[in-house]
Amino acid sequence: MNTEALAPGSFIGIIGGGQLGRMLAMAAARLGYRTIILEPDSNAPAAQVANTQIVADYDDPAALQQLADLCDVVTYEFENVPVKAVQWLESRLPVRPGSKALEVAQDRLMEKAMARELGAETALFSAVARRPDLDAAIRTTGLPAVLKTTRLGYDGKGQAKLVRPEDADTAYAAMQGKMAILESFVHFECEVSVIAARGLSGEVRAFEVSENVHRNHILHTSTVPSGLGPEAQSKALEIASAIAAHLDYVGVFAVEFFAVRDGDQHRLLVNEIAPRVHNSGHWTEAACAISQFEQHIRAISGLPLGNTERHSDCVMENLIGSEADKVADLAAEPNAVVHLYGKAEARPGRKMGHITRISARSQLP
Amino acid sequence: MNTEALAPGSFIGIIGGGQLGRMLAMAAARLGYRTIILEPDSNAPAAQVANTQIVADYDDPAALQQLADLCDVVTYEFENVPVKAVQWLESRLPVRPGSKALEVAQDRLMEKAMARELGAETALFSAVARRPDLDAAIRTTGLPAVLKTTRLGYDGKGQAKLVRPEDADTAYAAMQGKMAILESFVHFECEVSVIAARGLSGEVRAFEVSENVHRNHILHTSTVPSGLGPEAQSKALEIASAIAAHLDYVGVFAVEFFAVRDGDQHRLLVNEIAPRVHNSGHWTEAACAISQFEQHIRAISGLPLGNTERHSDCVMENLIGSEADKVADLAAEPNAVVHLYGKAEARPGRKMGHITRISARSQLP
Repeated sequence: MNTEALAPGSFIGIIGGGQLGRMLAMAAARLGYRTIILEPDSNAPAAQVANTQIVADYDDPAALQQLADLCDVVTYEFENVPVKAVQWLESRLPVRPGSKALEVAQDRLMEKAMARELGAETALFSAVARRPDLDAAIRTTGLPAVLKTTRLGYDGKGQAKLVRPEDADTAYAAMQGKMAILESFVHFECEVSVIAARGLSGEVRAFEVSENVHRNHILHTSTVPSGLGPEAQSKALEIASAIAAHLDYVGVFAVEFFAVRDGDQHRLLVNEIAPRVHNSGHWTEAACAISQFEQHIRAISGLPLGNTERHSDCVMENLIGSEADKVADLAAEPNAVVHLYGKAEARPGRKMGHITRISARSQLP
Repeated sequence: MNTEALAPGSFIGIIGGGQLGRMLAMAAARLGYRTIILEPDSNAPAAQVANTQIVADYDDPAALQQLADLCDVVTYEFENVPVKAVQWLESRLPVRPGSKALEVAQDRLMEKAMARELGAETALFSAVARRPDLDAAIRTTGLPAVLKTTRLGYDGKGQAKLVRPEDADTAYAAMQGKMAILESFVHFECEVSVIAARGLSGEVRAFEVSENVHRNHILHTSTVPSGLGPEAQSKALEIASAIAAHLDYVGVFAVEFFAVRDGDQHRLLVNEIAPRVHNSGHWTEAACAISQFEQHIRAISGLPLGNTERHSDCVMENLIGSEADKVADLAAEPNAVVHLYGKAEARPGRKMGHITRISARSQLP
């Protein structure tokens, strides 16, 4: 046995109790590990399938001490975990991925700057700390452009679009005084993402790139195979590998790209980096022998990374709000894998589950 | 939405806390259901991934009352649950499958008699209540034959082989005065099983037959596709359907057969019926979109049964005792799905997990 790997029965701590934590906890169980969830919501999706839940805030000192005492390794399922909490844990036990990835992912400016440093393309961007910065930023990015808070935005929250210079005041006001970044609007042909993992040994493996469609700023579908050619696929993996090595990353992460048509090829612009399993990788559960969730658990446990090949083509579709109520209809579809998250209340816009429709594997383009 | 189906968030009670309960609990979670395990062992594999465990004996009246109060439907993961406990629960809420299947499966004589009544072949058999019955039974079955207690035997326990008439005394003594059945020894070419499900609507769907190899009376491997031709496959499904209809069964069950060579065909003799998900169906988790565990949850929840097609060929191998310690080596295999059960102690002969090696789907023979 690989002496670096966690022994069966070891405890994995997961900070965050949402659906990603839930699917990680089940993947950990399948590999014989036990899980402890740190999450203030006592009816959290992840807690329903974990060994234990510590019901406390993510930065509660006593809770962090308990997590450190009970666990062999800690991970997190969302990128807005307080960096200080992770740093405190890191001084006591392995946290994978660590606080460095979290810091970068929490700040859109750092994220984009890192991508550029590593030789990847991004949209044009400029920092906006005060109102006059915005006029200068517009000269850098041109219009249309999107103004975003640098921190804590997701699913379209904390964003404002600028089409004409006159939109600047309203957009700036929408940031509510928070540090922001102006990004040029990218005329992309499609959005794609790569879900990759870096193991303890430094090895990187990626699942095939998926093509993602958003509705109301929320992921609607991920389709595999995507419309990308092999060169763009290789480029996506190359960028992901550079990011992972730079961050000394251990675990699964996602890189979201805008794919811009360039003759008969695509250029890829890094849009976002997520230091965690990702909604656009849920298809791996239905179309691959090893899912992104198991891949993450393998990486952080020191097990060898799994094969990322897929046995089927697929389209994953998110079930939002009341869409999950029609579970019996969805389950009646002959080639669909339905997955619900155990959330009590189906609020509008809330991710309640997903369905992956699979079909026989086609050739790569 | 199908009004018969349990709503997401409903509670499913599972009697028994072993690995089958564990895999059922995870399948239930993926469909948005919550689970409550009734199991006296507080460190049970199923409890690690369930919402709640009631730590009590299977026939504890207060525990059964609690289960009835909390659950929307109850199922069981092994066939030695006390029939009276299930009957008591049945008077209060749906129990699927019910006590009738349990009664038959707990008694080898009833099981074999039912198979014969339904037109299926079995080995020759005869009841042995007292020592003189054994001599008469030998005249019915011929020798060699196998003497088995009618109840509570599994994995080769409570069995004795008779090769010559002189073996009768020793074999009879091994039954320790328990009611027994003598079965003629079948010269089979292979052992196969079918995992089928019957839904609330009465619809029956079966996974493809697997070919099973035992070692020391414990399942070693299940291989799909098996060596059976299409006629024998159809026959297996026909027998399974007849059994399910006869028992008014709801849920997944297994029928194990001896396959005897008959020219270029196989004759199938019913060996055992298991009123539950079955070790020889673990391969479905890796090679089908819908596993036997999800199929069982769908059936007992009133959801439509899932597609039983497989996307891959496969060989499932049990990991017994210390075999599960080499998890890092197993996880390094490129096309293997590893599944461990979270058992603390790797005793010899104990099922600790399984590994399913998948490969591209071949044509049926």
